Amino acid sequence: MATLRVPPQVPSPAEDCEQLRKAFQGWGTNEALIISILAHRNAAQRKVIQEIYAETYGEELLKALDKELSSDFERIVLLWTLDPAERDAFLANEATKRLTSSNWVLMEIACTRSSLDLFKAKQAYQARYKRSLEEDVAYHTSGDFRRLLVPLVSTFRYDGNEVNMTLAKSEAKLLHEKIAEKAYNHEDLIRILTTRSKAQLNATLNHYNNEFGNAINKDLKTDAGDEYLKLLRATIKCLTYPEKYFEKVLRLAINKLGTDEWALARVVATRAEVDMQRIKEEYQRRNSVPLDSAIGKDTSGDYEKMLLALVGHGDY
Amino acid sequence: MATLRVPPQVPSPAEDCEQLRKAFQGWGTNEALIISILAHRNAAQRKVIQEIYAETYGEELLKALDKELSSDFERIVLLWTLDPAERDAFLANEATKRLTSSNWVLMEIACTRSSLDLFKAKQAYQARYKRSLEEDVAYHTSGDFRRLLVPLVSTFRYDGNEVNMTLAKSEAKLLHEKIAEKAYNHEDLIRILTTRSKAQLNATLNHYNNEFGNAINKDLKTDAGDEYLKLLRATIKCLTYPEKYFEKVLRLAINKLGTDEWALARVVATRAEVDMQRIKEEYQRRNSVPLDSAIGKDTSGDYEKMLLALVGHGDY
Repeated sequence: MATLRVPPQVPSPAEDCEQLRKAFQGWGTNEALIISILAHRNAAQRKVIQEIYAETYGEELLKALDKELSSDFERIVLLWTLDPAERDAFLANEATKRLTSSNWVLMEIACTRSSLDLFKAKQAYQARYKRSLEEDVAYHTSGDFRRLLVPLVSTFRYDGNEVNMTLAKSEAKLLHEKIAEKAYNHEDLIRILTTRSKAQLNATLNHYNNEFGNAINKDLKTDAGDEYLKLLRATIKCLTYPEKYFEKVLRLAINKLGTDEWALARVVATRAEVDMQRIKEEYQRRNSVPLDSAIGKDTSGDYEKMLLALVGHGDY
Repeated sequence: MATLRVPPQVPSPAEDCEQLRKAFQGWGTNEALIISILAHRNAAQRKVIQEIYAETYGEELLKALDKELSSDFERIVLLWTLDPAERDAFLANEATKRLTSSNWVLMEIACTRSSLDLFKAKQAYQARYKRSLEEDVAYHTSGDFRRLLVPLVSTFRYDGNEVNMTLAKSEAKLLHEKIAEKAYNHEDLIRILTTRSKAQLNATLNHYNNEFGNAINKDLKTDAGDEYLKLLRATIKCLTYPEKYFEKVLRLAINKLGTDEWALARVVATRAEVDMQRIKEEYQRRNSVPLDSAIGKDTSGDYEKMLLALVGHGDY
């Protein structure tokens, strides 16, 4: 469930554009006006606004926002305004660049989007960067990380609910064997995690838990400092309990000395229209504090207002 | 260029259906009538015919054909009539089954279709088999074959023409190093072949040839009996000169004692609407005999007539 709140009466895209244009003009920028519009329009509406804006004023809305805004507030507004597939393409591309590289962001995008949304992100990636996401990930990673990440971003996973219980049992056994042998990068373990449908993986991992007495991620926690094992556990979490994964990313981002703004903005921008409500519930349960309050305590100004609007705090 | 010949005046789909229905009724089947219709309609037209046929007679056209026809003729008519994406899904599924398994068919589908057509085949695969092509290939292959085939069927390759020459040079060097070390299953070699765009690979392999004095496939021919190396060379051929690859498949299929009907029917059904004209030219050049004559010599009856119609021989 989304936390995005769209007013019952939405102004026409032309009116929205006119208001945004006003917000950019004169002395200083009217950030509150920008938030009141963009933070309360869904992806389809934001897309039309961008089209009309470009037609009307001969300038891309994203360019105008880029000129008028700055720092953390700019980043969250731009990320949010982007079409979801283009946003994922942008984040994934950043994650393959040397200075902003992140195996986690690549894994997160590959594992928490629907198969079709991941495919659309890959199309947007090619349209924008004239290369495939696959080749960039393969080129910029190495070793075990590459062995896991390339198939994760490549596979067009089956999205249906059919489950083969015989297969779930045999693959649970296979996973248990490989983990017992500490063969964490074994090709069968990677094959299962990167090609099976989420429904099938759930069945396999439930059987693993029932049959062998531990959740798989507990068995994969043999060395808390091993970065590959951390990524492997996060992959499994993203594929089976994405809201728990995102709760933890938010928790670590907010509790960090000096808040990890990139993680915070990324999760809010990418989940507000998808499952932020469940992430908030998970956050409250795990931290005994509402996510809104935690964000409010750790951020300030327009940046705070934008984040809170997106997580559904307060009025339109 | 296609060899499919569609008459300038095409009867309405309803008329085609009526004629097909007639061909199935009475004593014996009218094969000539079936060929005269189906072998001269393009994919979009065949699709509409199938829809109208099912609506009108309450039976799938493919089911009716299956009932009325038999052996090699049946297979070519069914393969041809199928929608291209569904046909690829069907062929790929066969290729993952134990008794009909074929690494070559999987490679061929992965490497000679456009990125979007491969994606559509994967969607059709999921719709029909309730699993992903990726998981079936990963499950039914092993060793070096799996290491090559899974990324081949997984990647959504960039289809554009942009080429990075610096990258082409560095990757040509890398390929040459790995081949010199006989590291034919090295992850970088596989990464390059399975993720780079066809245009980029062409640039890389041209540079390889210029810089190191041999075409890459010559350097990969160190052990003529090695099945993995054979598949690797075929992969490179499919990605860079598909018409040469298909010429060879046809040549081997026809020259074989007792013709390899599956290969012959597969290539004709999948290429007639794509690039069969170039394959025919290549065949003539390599064998000093027109493909039509070679097919005519090796096949007979309705099967021969259907194949010849699809490769553009004779009248409508």
